[in-house]
Amino acid sequence: MITSLGNERIKAVVRMRQKAKARAEADAFLAEGIKMFLEAPAQQIREVYISESFSCPDAAVERAVREKAGALPCETVSEAVFAKLSDTCSPQGVLCVLNRRHYQLADMLREKNPLLLLAEGIQDPGNLGTMIRAGEGAGIHGLILSSDTVDMYNPKTIRATMGSVYRVPFLYTDSLLATMKELQARGIAVYAAHLRGERSYDLCDFLDGTAFLIGNEGNGLRRESAEVADMYMKIPMAGRVESLNAGMAAAVLLYEAARQRRNQE
Amino acid sequence: MITSLGNERIKAVVRMRQKAKARAEADAFLAEGIKMFLEAPAQQIREVYISESFSCPDAAVERAVREKAGALPCETVSEAVFAKLSDTCSPQGVLCVLNRRHYQLADMLREKNPLLLLAEGIQDPGNLGTMIRAGEGAGIHGLILSSDTVDMYNPKTIRATMGSVYRVPFLYTDSLLATMKELQARGIAVYAAHLRGERSYDLCDFLDGTAFLIGNEGNGLRRESAEVADMYMKIPMAGRVESLNAGMAAAVLLYEAARQRRNQE
Repeated sequence: MITSLGNERIKAVVRMRQKAKARAEADAFLAEGIKMFLEAPAQQIREVYISESFSCPDAAVERAVREKAGALPCETVSEAVFAKLSDTCSPQGVLCVLNRRHYQLADMLREKNPLLLLAEGIQDPGNLGTMIRAGEGAGIHGLILSSDTVDMYNPKTIRATMGSVYRVPFLYTDSLLATMKELQARGIAVYAAHLRGERSYDLCDFLDGTAFLIGNEGNGLRRESAEVADMYMKIPMAGRVESLNAGMAAAVLLYEAARQRRNQE
Repeated sequence: MITSLGNERIKAVVRMRQKAKARAEADAFLAEGIKMFLEAPAQQIREVYISESFSCPDAAVERAVREKAGALPCETVSEAVFAKLSDTCSPQGVLCVLNRRHYQLADMLREKNPLLLLAEGIQDPGNLGTMIRAGEGAGIHGLILSSDTVDMYNPKTIRATMGSVYRVPFLYTDSLLATMKELQARGIAVYAAHLRGERSYDLCDFLDGTAFLIGNEGNGLRRESAEVADMYMKIPMAGRVESLNAGMAAAVLLYEAARQRRNQE
C-alpha cells in the first residue's frame, strides 16, 4: 500500500490532475469514480488506484470494481494519498490513469451522412463534458474542437462526460477553418447557430451530412469561422433571452437532427 | 463611501450572499454584475452597491449603470468591501439587493394553453439557473419547483439565469403532487421525462396545456411524483448514454414544444 505523498508515481498522478501539460506529456488522462472506472475500456487503462477504505453500498458493484481492478496494474493507497489524487470533495475511492486515443477525421466519416458537432472556444469544462454526453445521446459521429477550447481531459470535463469521452470520437484542430472546408469538400453542410441567423433551425434539413458549429459561451463564433459556414440558423427566443447556454444550444440542435433522422426511417 | 467590513449594512448583505435563510428573512435577493443590474426591474431594487473603482470599457454601458444607480438608493464601497459582497472571483463592481416577487399559480395560467416546467429536487444551482433561462427562451409561462429544489435566489443560480429570473414566474410548492393534480384539474397534461417512458417525446402533442416534469440530476423523479404524471415519455438515447443532464433534458423538451407551437400558427 502506498502511504507516502512523496511517492514518485503519486506525484506524477497529482501533476496530471492539476496540469493539462503533464497529462499531454504523459499521453494520458485520469478518470475517477465508480461509473467512470467501470465504463473505462480495460485495454486503455494503465494504472488503477483504490483507497484503503474503498467500499460500496451495492455489493455487486463493489465486486465488479475489485474484479476489474484485480486484472489490471492496481495499487491500494491510504486515504490521505487518495484525497490528494482526487479532484472531488467526496471521493468514491477509485481512480484510473488511461492512455489517450487519437482519433482522425476519417474515424468520424465512416457513416454515409455523418452528424458532427464543431465547438469553438468553449471555456467551461462542465459545458464541454455535457456537450459530448448530449452528443452521444443524439447519435453524433464525432466532435471537433478548436485549439482554444478547454481541455477535454480536464478532470471536471471527464466527469461531466459521464463516460461519453470513452465512446465518441473527438479531435482538436489547429485550424477550424481548414477542417470546415474539408468537411464541406466531402459534402457535409456546416450550420452555424448565430444571432444573425434568419431561418429557424427546425426548418433546416439535417438528413444529409451535417455539422453544427457552436461558439464560445460569452462571445459566440469568431467572424472568420461563421463566414465559412454554409448557413446561419437561429434558435428562436421568446422573452428577452439573447441566446442559450452553449451546451443547451448544442443539445437542442442535435436532438432536432436526431428527430428528423428518426422520422425519416 | 463605506470602507468598513464591520458596517451593519455590509454585514447584512454578506449574510444574504452566504445564507438562504438570511435572504428569505429579508424577503430579498442579490443580483451582481452589469447585465444583471441593468436588466433588474427598478421598482424591485432596494439598494445598489458600486465599487470605488467601477468602470467599464464601454462608456455608454458605464453611463447607463451610473444613471440607473443614481436614481436609486446607492452606496459607493471600497474595493475590499465590494470583494466581500461579491460572489465571483473577478467582480464587475456593481451589485443590487432586490425585493422578491411572490408569484401565484394563477400568474402562470393566464394563457389558454400554458407551457410549464416542473422541477423536482434539482440540486445544482447552475442547472436551475440555465433551466429558467432556456425556459424563457422557449416561451414557458412558469416554473414550479418542489420544496427540496435548490434555492432560486442562490447567487450562482441568479447569475446563471442571465436575467430570466426577473421575468419568468416561478414558485416553490410544498406538495408537487397537489400542484400537479391542480394543473390536471385545469386540463394541463403532465408529461414526465422518465427512463421507463415508451413513447418518444417528439411523438407527443404539446399544443394544449403542457407541463414537463423533470427530476433530480442523480436519482430522477420520485416514484410518487412520476405516478401522478399523465404520460411517461422517453428522450431517445443513442450509444450508451442513460439520460441527459436535467437542464439539457428540459431544453430539448421545451424547444420541441415551442417547435410544435410555432408550426401550428
